[in-house]
Amino acid sequence: MPNELRRDYILDRYAIIASARMRRPTDFSIPPKVETGEKCPFCVGNEKATPPADLLLIRSDNGITYSKDSEGERTSNWLVRCFPNLYPATEPSAEAPPPSEPLRPLRVAYGYHEIIVESPNHQEHPGQARVEQLQLSLEATLILMRRFVGDVRIRYVQLFRNHRKEAGASLSHTHSQIIALDSIPRNISEELEGFKKHRKTEGDCPYCEIIERERDSPREVFENEDFFVLAPWASISPFELWILPKRHEADILKITRTDVTALAKTLRSTLGAISKLLGDMPYNYGFHTSPKGLDSTDYHWHLEIYPKLSIWAGFELSTGVYINVTPPEVAARSLRESVKDEWSSLC
Amino acid sequence: MPNELRRDYILDRYAIIASARMRRPTDFSIPPKVETGEKCPFCVGNEKATPPADLLLIRSDNGITYSKDSEGERTSNWLVRCFPNLYPATEPSAEAPPPSEPLRPLRVAYGYHEIIVESPNHQEHPGQARVEQLQLSLEATLILMRRFVGDVRIRYVQLFRNHRKEAGASLSHTHSQIIALDSIPRNISEELEGFKKHRKTEGDCPYCEIIERERDSPREVFENEDFFVLAPWASISPFELWILPKRHEADILKITRTDVTALAKTLRSTLGAISKLLGDMPYNYGFHTSPKGLDSTDYHWHLEIYPKLSIWAGFELSTGVYINVTPPEVAARSLRESVKDEWSSLC
Repeated sequence: MPNELRRDYILDRYAIIASARMRRPTDFSIPPKVETGEKCPFCVGNEKATPPADLLLIRSDNGITYSKDSEGERTSNWLVRCFPNLYPATEPSAEAPPPSEPLRPLRVAYGYHEIIVESPNHQEHPGQARVEQLQLSLEATLILMRRFVGDVRIRYVQLFRNHRKEAGASLSHTHSQIIALDSIPRNISEELEGFKKHRKTEGDCPYCEIIERERDSPREVFENEDFFVLAPWASISPFELWILPKRHEADILKITRTDVTALAKTLRSTLGAISKLLGDMPYNYGFHTSPKGLDSTDYHWHLEIYPKLSIWAGFELSTGVYINVTPPEVAARSLRESVKDEWSSLC
Repeated sequence: MPNELRRDYILDRYAIIASARMRRPTDFSIPPKVETGEKCPFCVGNEKATPPADLLLIRSDNGITYSKDSEGERTSNWLVRCFPNLYPATEPSAEAPPPSEPLRPLRVAYGYHEIIVESPNHQEHPGQARVEQLQLSLEATLILMRRFVGDVRIRYVQLFRNHRKEAGASLSHTHSQIIALDSIPRNISEELEGFKKHRKTEGDCPYCEIIERERDSPREVFENEDFFVLAPWASISPFELWILPKRHEADILKITRTDVTALAKTLRSTLGAISKLLGDMPYNYGFHTSPKGLDSTDYHWHLEIYPKLSIWAGFELSTGVYINVTPPEVAARSLRESVKDEWSSLC
């Protein structure tokens, strides 16, 4: 099979699907995680090692209640614990922008940077988590996202996750992060641009069309009533996966409670299947959602999972073209049965 | 110092310069390279392990001569050896494009993918190389680039280098690579776009202006008669460095023989200083040059060096905004004296 230069569904971005140097699932050898045995600041009992929580999910007699730490004290009976990053990339207190100079444009990095500790159990990562726990941590992130969106200066809220040191996680305790920004970031702008262009020529939401066209294709991984999982056409790395909600909605904050449950189960099945196939793979994921104030017809929120199974090197960094040695069709085929099995075991 | 959101000189790309979580040169610990002791296919005597060379630089009584291997035989007395990649990303024989489908645009990955073994000495990497050797390998790459540009279908030729496994080098023997493409890649398109926009508003080449404005700034690393080295304003990773030719020229293929020598010395001094400071740092570099047929006023070729000292994680992959924990001013300051010393030792 000749190598193919594939253009992304939406972006003007290309991947070389290099079948000539194909790496199959069995070709990846992922070293086991080494726990350093250092005291984990995210574990129960060590809460003093972090800033006070600004959101705690706690089980009470009436179900789950929301709370927070007071400045000098820390609560320890939490199920999900959220607090500002000790070394934030963006900050709400950042004021007084220094003057820009010609060729050197500059703003203060305004925003919020939050840590969501997803479980009291150090190792309860989404691929292995109890669905109820995953659901709680998703609920906590949605509460925080809504809170940050409430700031008039915020334009975009990025929810993301880094799994394992190789994928940039400095701590191994299960956690996600949110960074809220006062501008629409580059990648989302480009998606919005591509979205607009597609709708102008084809008249429809491109993501809705992806679901239609990739259903039963060699790139479909899994489908349930609410979500569609696929290895995208121009995957820029081995085992890149997208999870798309089937009901068109631009903004993840409009998600229903039922959909949160379905999302938790879909995420659990997908990541669970990957770890069954490849071991404890380092990965990143990010929710792509609508910037604040956008029309619901103008975007389609989704989750993109980026495994860290290859290295973008001199060619990728210079050109913005990606060489991918595992065709998405191979990735999808090797996961299809397993995701279905994981899903069944949860239902 | 508050974190800054800096826009690139030319691209619509942002970096968060995160002084709050600053990493200084001494904070990076680079593990020593482990040689596996496996037989190196790029070493002298093992030429049969690779395709026949299509360019060899050989020392003869009359100076350097150019040659190549015949199909069944291999020459062993080479100084620089070039051959097609055994697992090419792009190929000239790739024909018969399969039909594209809606939403799934596709072309065959047409082009050339070449390996340049830069020295018979396994470890003679550019940061430690003899200048004459580095000069020879640059000359060989220029010959190949000219050859590929001669193919009417080729639009862009990317010369790049991956140093160490962590930066995507599968073999540790000193080598560069060329990938020639039949289209202008995304990043170069964006640079051309930004270039055009800048010239329209400011009337000048932005790269020439960068040299003027960054001269004697905290981001200047080094300057000689022909080249200017800087840590760019919106560096997307720690110790990102650019080497710019001071004479405006769009196309690296127009470089003079004297400038090749100066480039070899500048590269040697810059990478030599980095390895004195940080150890044997994994890095990638890429030459950014004009696509074929562009006017000489429409671009300014240069070299971008991307150290692998940090991991782009969920935030960077989702947003296209980069968090950089080493301000370029800190990187430039820590290298300035050392590059000067390295340069002096070569002259």
